[in-house]
Amino acid sequence: MSAPAGDGRGTRVIFRGGETGAWRVTRIEAAAGSSLEAVSHVAIAAHDLSPVPLDRWRLRGTLSHARYVTRVEREHLLAVQPELNRPEATRAALIPIRKSAAWWDLAQDERRAIFEERSRHIATGMKYLPAIARRLYHGRELGEPFDFLTWFEYAPRDEVAFEALVSELRRTEEWRYVEREIDIRLTRSAAR
Amino acid sequence: MSAPAGDGRGTRVIFRGGETGAWRVTRIEAAAGSSLEAVSHVAIAAHDLSPVPLDRWRLRGTLSHARYVTRVEREHLLAVQPELNRPEATRAALIPIRKSAAWWDLAQDERRAIFEERSRHIATGMKYLPAIARRLYHGRELGEPFDFLTWFEYAPRDEVAFEALVSELRRTEEWRYVEREIDIRLTRSAAR
Repeated sequence: MSAPAGDGRGTRVIFRGGETGAWRVTRIEAAAGSSLEAVSHVAIAAHDLSPVPLDRWRLRGTLSHARYVTRVEREHLLAVQPELNRPEATRAALIPIRKSAAWWDLAQDERRAIFEERSRHIATGMKYLPAIARRLYHGRELGEPFDFLTWFEYAPRDEVAFEALVSELRRTEEWRYVEREIDIRLTRSAAR
Repeated sequence: MSAPAGDGRGTRVIFRGGETGAWRVTRIEAAAGSSLEAVSHVAIAAHDLSPVPLDRWRLRGTLSHARYVTRVEREHLLAVQPELNRPEATRAALIPIRKSAAWWDLAQDERRAIFEERSRHIATGMKYLPAIARRLYHGRELGEPFDFLTWFEYAPRDEVAFEALVSELRRTEEWRYVEREIDIRLTRSAAR
């Protein structure tokens, strides 16, 4: 769902929260656990940069292969999911999530059963395609405070749909394993 | 199979190939792709250290959750797998592996089917328990040249069994997706 065509081995992203960047923050709230420091902008960088005093926080992740999607689900997704950077998609959400040790201690079949058979994570996301573009970065193997950084892009007219998606996912059994989640909403800055 | 009890989030290891270390190299060969530079010793470190000129190479990985093992398989494994650092386990193997883009492009159910239903990776490993201790580190999300670093420990009397295990795994369908594999055999240095 999130990996680029081909390999994408170790492709890194850094979300930098501070006072400059292509995305202006309209809201930042903790859905679970403690929040992040408030910032006015988020910049997206591909590489670690020398320290910039204006950064309040940096969240790192890597693209990786999909961990739960089956071949059939994947073909559906590939057929309908939109690209990032559509001109009309001027709204975004950055949702860093950390799951509990209890989640990571489950076996693969148990995680898949909770994730999809019982929580319908993939099926729910699919209902909102092609409106909402999504890309998932993994932070756990990097020793980051968040296991996942999910980035969403959508048009202003799809804001209500996006709220419905997020609130549906937070009512699931899977979400009981979320111990920290920050919901950051953004608007593309005038200068692209 | 490889993660410690509890979380182990981002626990890092660095295998340093050079002229010093707790393990003396007895053999280093490529089973697929290009080899690594020959070294006399391997040291195992928990943290990145300042550059040491005697290091010829450094391989990095992190502990992570098991990606294919089901709950039933996992309970079998937990019941029989040995710890690392048994006094009699004076032999070791470090096997860095890189899989092809074609592997990473498969969906989860396709990878599981090749890995276990058709290649019997877990079942084969289980036949050699409790003789052979094993720990798996992941390097792909770190952008490392190897996706996996597997570390094995066994007693000298189990050397023949270990050869049988390795050669069984190399005859599988899964192994066709291995594009680079180095087989490094080691003996514990006199001073522990």
